[in-house]
Amino acid sequence: MKWCGWGDPDRRLDLPTEAIQALRDELGIVPGDAIEPVTMDAVELPEPRPLPQAVRVAAGEVLEGADERLRRAAGRSYPDLVRLRTGRLETAPDAVLRPSDAVGVEAVLRACAAESVAVVPFGGGTSVVGGVEALRGDHRCVVSLDLSRLRSVSFDQTSLTVALGPGLSGPEAESALEALGVTLGHFPQSFEEATIGGFAATRSAGQASSGYGRFDELVTAVELTAPVGRLRTLKIPHTAAGPSLREVVLGSEGSLGVITEVSCRVRPAPLLRLYEGWMAADFEQGRAIVRDLAQRHEAPDVIRLSDEEETRVSLELAGTEGFRKRALDAYLGLRRRRGGCLIICGWEGEREAVHRRRSLAQARLRRGGAAALGGSAGRSWERSRYAGPYLRDELMNLGVMVETLETAHTWSRLGELYRAVGGALRGALGDRSIVMCHVSHAYTDGASLYFTFFTRARRGEEIDQWRAAKSAACEAIVACEGTITHHHAVGRDHAPYMRAELGELGLEALGAVKERLDPAGVMNPGKLLPTP
Amino acid sequence: MKWCGWGDPDRRLDLPTEAIQALRDELGIVPGDAIEPVTMDAVELPEPRPLPQAVRVAAGEVLEGADERLRRAAGRSYPDLVRLRTGRLETAPDAVLRPSDAVGVEAVLRACAAESVAVVPFGGGTSVVGGVEALRGDHRCVVSLDLSRLRSVSFDQTSLTVALGPGLSGPEAESALEALGVTLGHFPQSFEEATIGGFAATRSAGQASSGYGRFDELVTAVELTAPVGRLRTLKIPHTAAGPSLREVVLGSEGSLGVITEVSCRVRPAPLLRLYEGWMAADFEQGRAIVRDLAQRHEAPDVIRLSDEEETRVSLELAGTEGFRKRALDAYLGLRRRRGGCLIICGWEGEREAVHRRRSLAQARLRRGGAAALGGSAGRSWERSRYAGPYLRDELMNLGVMVETLETAHTWSRLGELYRAVGGALRGALGDRSIVMCHVSHAYTDGASLYFTFFTRARRGEEIDQWRAAKSAACEAIVACEGTITHHHAVGRDHAPYMRAELGELGLEALGAVKERLDPAGVMNPGKLLPTP
Repeated sequence: MKWCGWGDPDRRLDLPTEAIQALRDELGIVPGDAIEPVTMDAVELPEPRPLPQAVRVAAGEVLEGADERLRRAAGRSYPDLVRLRTGRLETAPDAVLRPSDAVGVEAVLRACAAESVAVVPFGGGTSVVGGVEALRGDHRCVVSLDLSRLRSVSFDQTSLTVALGPGLSGPEAESALEALGVTLGHFPQSFEEATIGGFAATRSAGQASSGYGRFDELVTAVELTAPVGRLRTLKIPHTAAGPSLREVVLGSEGSLGVITEVSCRVRPAPLLRLYEGWMAADFEQGRAIVRDLAQRHEAPDVIRLSDEEETRVSLELAGTEGFRKRALDAYLGLRRRRGGCLIICGWEGEREAVHRRRSLAQARLRRGGAAALGGSAGRSWERSRYAGPYLRDELMNLGVMVETLETAHTWSRLGELYRAVGGALRGALGDRSIVMCHVSHAYTDGASLYFTFFTRARRGEEIDQWRAAKSAACEAIVACEGTITHHHAVGRDHAPYMRAELGELGLEALGAVKERLDPAGVMNPGKLLPTP
Repeated sequence: MKWCGWGDPDRRLDLPTEAIQALRDELGIVPGDAIEPVTMDAVELPEPRPLPQAVRVAAGEVLEGADERLRRAAGRSYPDLVRLRTGRLETAPDAVLRPSDAVGVEAVLRACAAESVAVVPFGGGTSVVGGVEALRGDHRCVVSLDLSRLRSVSFDQTSLTVALGPGLSGPEAESALEALGVTLGHFPQSFEEATIGGFAATRSAGQASSGYGRFDELVTAVELTAPVGRLRTLKIPHTAAGPSLREVVLGSEGSLGVITEVSCRVRPAPLLRLYEGWMAADFEQGRAIVRDLAQRHEAPDVIRLSDEEETRVSLELAGTEGFRKRALDAYLGLRRRRGGCLIICGWEGEREAVHRRRSLAQARLRRGGAAALGGSAGRSWERSRYAGPYLRDELMNLGVMVETLETAHTWSRLGELYRAVGGALRGALGDRSIVMCHVSHAYTDGASLYFTFFTRARRGEEIDQWRAAKSAACEAIVACEGTITHHHAVGRDHAPYMRAELGELGLEALGAVKERLDPAGVMNPGKLLPTP
């Protein structure tokens, strides 16, 4: 991964010149705002604290080079990228440990607990909520625990399950599964860089989660290696034997221990993938259609509804998240409807099933008032489905502040939440900003809202500017009793809102589990739970 | 409910005389074995311990009559029924408290914690695993906390969710929902007597759970009133905000606190219900068919596969769980296939969707080698879907020991588990016994196994006889790494096996939550977690 941005270092996204100009005009960005990252050797990392010898012995492989430390010093939120690009890193792991298996992880954690060394589990480093920030808490030093050597794959063909090592990246896992004729079907935007362990630890949700299920729904069993020992749930389809420990480990974000194995349901690899675009008259009509599909259990495997603003911007940025000339023409023909909201629908599976399910959904889309845009809009979305983070890098080069956040609520309160969060963001960002939103995960009882916002970055004050917007949005979410996160997880950024999410007693219950599994408090301090 | 048996006291199941005779012959039961329960006033309850005044004040309503205590002294497992029918009750609650709302529950729990009074939450009293046994632990006395006054219903039509009080029985909840045009779709065999709170506290699974989801899958939010305060999860479709507290409260069996509200997804009431029977050549073929349906996501809403023995006995007991003359004839016509395994399939929903899904599944059933038995077998099953516990009362009157237990495993190990548990039960029960099994909950990765076993009761030694069979089965399950319970829950009977289920560290994690929410340890002592 690019050391201060997203993905393949050799890949840059070309934005259409007119789109860039339109965006600049809208946000009031001038050519002088453009800014490229510093070079890697210009970054000054904090002086590393010495690693206790016992930890060194337990670890086997210890990486201490500046390069290795830097590459695990930050996730990929906007403030992370600002810190990396400007070379102003206040924290970095003192060393990187890379155990070769679960037994190695256990030895490391035991040593770290004994020596008061904070441990930040590290998969793909793609957290957008400060989940991998090298916080030391009140410990002697802090290490990044790189899980990239835990890459086992063990397939049960009869049960259609696979036990995976946490260090496998999305593409690595999918390519191993492809050879077996199956798929997880888990394709979040971070797919290319994120790992299996991260998917489980953060309750990731993929773009096709309406069809395949969120990652937490795919997981049948977990193994958690904690400082005090190992916890395994049985590899079974379901149990009524008490509270679900699997559901305690899922979402634990490295704060209870390290997820050292994840067993998942898989599906036969789809023989056909069909994506297409539709246009709803407005966001409210679009939501009604998505709700209808979800409540009838006839939702496509991918269903994504953009609001008017996201639709407009997507079209302007065509070639990235938008769609190309032909679809655009079709869209423009519809402009007598004023604006409109793009719906991307996708079906995956056996040919016959795809066509059957598609035809059911199409009838609902039409009945709800949407107009078909055809396959080109869908294919355009498919081509650019992982492009968002690349786009962000380019926009930051122009001098744009760009960030995303997400929440969820019941259908009856989704409109209220949409207005509140949008209003809060616009209030914090000022007039020359773009705040746009989509629904990407639909349930019978509600849906997620995913906001993207752009404004001109205030040079030198980027993080304050970001914090003001982020706080305003989070407070709006809390006031509406929405969730602080649908699939980005908690990390450091959302930890202060966990009191509102869980209540005092809920926090205490989780805190009790943490104390039992990690009595020394070395596991990912400062994340998930608010500091008391 | 009958004080020493199941359901409506005025209802008795008539068994065909020939069926009774065949069963008697098979089990070696003689007319002298027949035994009716003692009368209610012949039951001697243990002397009640005095209730502390502070608890009395907090409770409002306190019921202390022998009748009230007796009716909450036992669940409905075989040993429970033996104790009731013979009038040999070693434990009973010292009093019954009946608060009117969650605030009342909180006051009671606080007082009980302060005064060291054990609390057994009580819904329908239908536990078959000792979940409502009035165990005092090391407390001064023990009360039954009757939740029957917590019966609120609050519907969100747009989101298709409903917040329900825990005291509503299955029929009460469904009749309130029917008036709103929706259904939970949760119909376990205990439906007629069990309650919403119990469904949540035990992770109940209904007969149509393949279609509607298990009860834990229907729940979107919970309110738990614990001795130290109240814990609420947000009413949202999903969150990635850390470990799931909802999944900690679900299945907690009264050991963390009292579930005082349950929010659930509902569905439009089905316009059509279609049940029908099929016959597979043998249990292995049947399992392959059910697996195929589940893995294609084309399983009927109800899918139940009996093994050869259950199929045979069901036919003999026609009119109860079996099916009637016409279907029987059809079956007999198939007898050249030797034996055979009955499959019940059911679809519920809109007319068109039911027919579409049914035709998909029928093609799979045929391709898998099953023969259609038509709708009469399905309707017969439907008529008798709640009859099992009534049948048990009648069999106990004849002198039969009759019990059920259930487990689950992945498809790849289901055959092994089936043979191991069946073998263990037959070994414990001896030659003159019937051990039969069905698959009733199918997943892509595995299924449940539900065993029913009959033998001649050893008069005066019924509980030892039961314990030998139960222990043998549980040990076989543990040895196969299956789950100790798929939907009956843990209660007292399975608590000793929780160490195998969760491991030492898993137990400690749960124990930590319990200590935080119930530091005085008054909540349902002796249940769920093994005594250290």
